[in-house]
Amino acid sequence: MSKQPLPLLSAAELEDCRVPLVAEPLTASQAERLAPSFKALGDPVRLRLLSLIASHAGGEVCVCDLTEAFDLTAPTISHHLKVLKEIGLVTSERRGTWVYYRAEPAALELLSTVLSVPQGAAA
Amino acid sequence: MSKQPLPLLSAAELEDCRVPLVAEPLTASQAERLAPSFKALGDPVRLRLLSLIASHAGGEVCVCDLTEAFDLTAPTISHHLKVLKEIGLVTSERRGTWVYYRAEPAALELLSTVLSVPQGAAA
Repeated sequence: MSKQPLPLLSAAELEDCRVPLVAEPLTASQAERLAPSFKALGDPVRLRLLSLIASHAGGEVCVCDLTEAFDLTAPTISHHLKVLKEIGLVTSERRGTWVYYRAEPAALELLSTVLSVPQGAAA
Repeated sequence: MSKQPLPLLSAAELEDCRVPLVAEPLTASQAERLAPSFKALGDPVRLRLLSLIASHAGGEVCVCDLTEAFDLTAPTISHHLKVLKEIGLVTSERRGTWVYYRAEPAALELLSTVLSVPQGAAA
């Protein structure tokens, strides 16, 4: 399976992965479905974009404001936003001229749970 | 900075990143330092290896047992373990013939905190 392209999945399709990886070994299927989300976060521009969107007052950011925050071209920003959207970490809505982005807290929280460590186990 | 190779950092060097990314925007420096850890997790074999190590009774796994769990060559497993070790998610110790691996709960917990969502914000 690991030679095939990694599938992009909705939060619902990851629901059975909502278990700390320290609690029990991930199955091959769970690992295949979780890895693309972590890979999406494995880029500094995408991490900053996600954080800018997720921490924004009102929970929504215009793509015009995101582009201004980086010393990168609009197509580059768009590419990174598309990756975050395809993996389900953000959603977007077009209103008039602009596209507005929101974070998906449930997707973040699932990934946080996977990496969480039961109390007392962290040194 | 984003064109340069991403640095590999110890948990101590990430200590100022122990903030949920939904709480405030990550700085460029924080994002640059966090991204390699998420990238390391963005591979299904590494996720399974980390989970096998972290969830193992006694907290330690012999590399011989890890290799048996996968339909992959020993050098491939070694490569993935090296990535996890360089990024600080596992540590290793050679004793006699074999190398033994342990997870670093503090590193996992830091990444979990970055992705965590304040109570009530997740739908």
